[in-house]
Amino acid sequence: MDSMLYLVDLFGTMVFAISGVILAGRLRMDPFGVMVLGSVTAIGGGTIRDMSLGATPVFWITDTTYLWVIIVTCLLTMMLIRHPRRLPWWVLPVSDAIGLAVFVGIGVEKALNYQDSALVAIIMGVITGCGGGIIRDVLAREIPMILRREVYATACIIGGAFYTTTLMLGATPESAFLSCVITTLIIRLGAIRWQLSLPTFALDK
Amino acid sequence: MDSMLYLVDLFGTMVFAISGVILAGRLRMDPFGVMVLGSVTAIGGGTIRDMSLGATPVFWITDTTYLWVIIVTCLLTMMLIRHPRRLPWWVLPVSDAIGLAVFVGIGVEKALNYQDSALVAIIMGVITGCGGGIIRDVLAREIPMILRREVYATACIIGGAFYTTTLMLGATPESAFLSCVITTLIIRLGAIRWQLSLPTFALDK
Amino acid sequence: MDSMLYLVDLFGTMVFAISGVILAGRLRMDPFGVMVLGSVTAIGGGTIRDMSLGATPVFWITDTTYLWVIIVTCLLTMMLIRHPRRLPWWVLPVSDAIGLAVFVGIGVEKALNYQDSALVAIIMGVITGCGGGIIRDVLAREIPMILRREVYATACIIGGAFYTTTLMLGATPESAFLSCVITTLIIRLGAIRWQLSLPTFALDK
Repeated sequence: MDSMLYLVDLFGTMVFAISGVILAGRLRMDPFGVMVLGSVTAIGGGTIRDMSLGATPVFWITDTTYLWVIIVTCLLTMMLIRHPRRLPWWVLPVSDAIGLAVFVGIGVEKALNYQDSALVAIIMGVITGCGGGIIRDVLAREIPMILRREVYATACIIGGAFYTTTLMLGATPESAFLSCVITTLIIRLGAIRWQLSLPTFALDK
Repeated sequence: MDSMLYLVDLFGTMVFAISGVILAGRLRMDPFGVMVLGSVTAIGGGTIRDMSLGATPVFWITDTTYLWVIIVTCLLTMMLIRHPRRLPWWVLPVSDAIGLAVFVGIGVEKALNYQDSALVAIIMGVITGCGGGIIRDVLAREIPMILRREVYATACIIGGAFYTTTLMLGATPESAFLSCVITTLIIRLGAIRWQLSLPTFALDK
Repeated sequence: MDSMLYLVDLFGTMVFAISGVILAGRLRMDPFGVMVLGSVTAIGGGTIRDMSLGATPVFWITDTTYLWVIIVTCLLTMMLIRHPRRLPWWVLPVSDAIGLAVFVGIGVEKALNYQDSALVAIIMGVITGCGGGIIRDVLAREIPMILRREVYATACIIGGAFYTTTLMLGATPESAFLSCVITTLIIRLGAIRWQLSLPTFALDK
């Protein structure tokens, strides 16, 4: 289970790095700028989580595997992807959904290792899942899409709530983790497939 | 005194969350995006303060009351406010001024619990008061108004300086705190009432 | 060596603060907003570095000299600089290059005091050198130029790699530090002199 989880975590890191690289490519950054944006997207959320919890040095200092995965991913993406539109349209969003789901589960789990509150754990799931993408969009001077639509923060919150609820109901940590990842994934995949979004909260200007 | 202070702190948290919700409404975010923006505005400044001081886990992890207040505030604001322009014009700025003044006082006080420098304490007051609003504006892709005009950072700095100066002159922590809050509040209210602003520092492009 | 290094570090702090003040002047901020932008530019990178390493309280809390240098620098810059274009064109970029080179060296050194990984040390050099400028540009609502061109992150990465490589090859920490600073400086000065930039990585929109 643990080594499986670690591999999926690294897969999430790869996918998020790729999304940073693609945005960087649209902004015509230089190769090292590309790596900065890829890295920030992949580890930004977990870094804020660890800083808030006081879990320092943060995770990518303790285990540099994450950094190597990001470096190799960024290099390969720059070499191989020239025309992202030629990929089947669903490859990137589905990969992103898998990465997101795993990151939410890991965020909740790590928070529960440090403190007891279920609410804080859910929030740490959201931060781990959404933080990197928000920093990526801010650096690219876009209003973070994550906040605007796409049932994105929503999926994280519901997934995180599944984790803490099943755990409270007596589930093992493993099955609570799985229920969280699967819930988040299903909601995101459903939102992608049927282009769901919540009604927005709109005020007059 | 302490429980009074705690209540005013929670009031500041509410007010700042509302200002995040209103900006989110203008950007037509989805409900969970609204809650993210409301939360960031309310606890962003104190989070940066605690991370810098090494006061981790940060305050809203140690005491989740803040989070519950934010959640309820965001939900109520979304349900009740549809036309913010129908409120008397002064309600939001005056509430914001009260929140700001309290946050500055709390930031200075917390910094003095961790270290001795008056300068660092004043800066922590500014960070606690202005940090959340700056993050809110960055996420909404606006140049933080706090930096541009309105005697906003200015009020925090002068209020914080009152705290440390009166304390050095022999005041009790309670009266130093009060003098800080009242000074910050008066400056902000005066700036709102008479639309004061400092001359800007302007360079040729 | 140590006191020399400290002086150069303070020089770097001054130069970065000036670059924040000049951007603030172009955005017509009020004087305290100017000081916020100057401070963030000068200490932002080192703050993120210290938070990630768990080196808290962060450096400017432990040694407030940095803050005083920033305050005096911001005040003097506001009083003396009205027409930055009247300075010889190379003064600001060359000073910035010196500041950057020193910050990279200091970031690498500090990281090596806290952990063993050369990769993490190089990244901390990049964060220390580029972090403040990135926050400055985000607050001013610009896509960080550092990421786009100018061989900026590139110079930091190569300089940091020189530090860790020479150290591994048996150099003293002093000479490793010097080789890092000189390498970073030469690359940046060369990039400024000949307007070098790497080919950008560009994707179709």
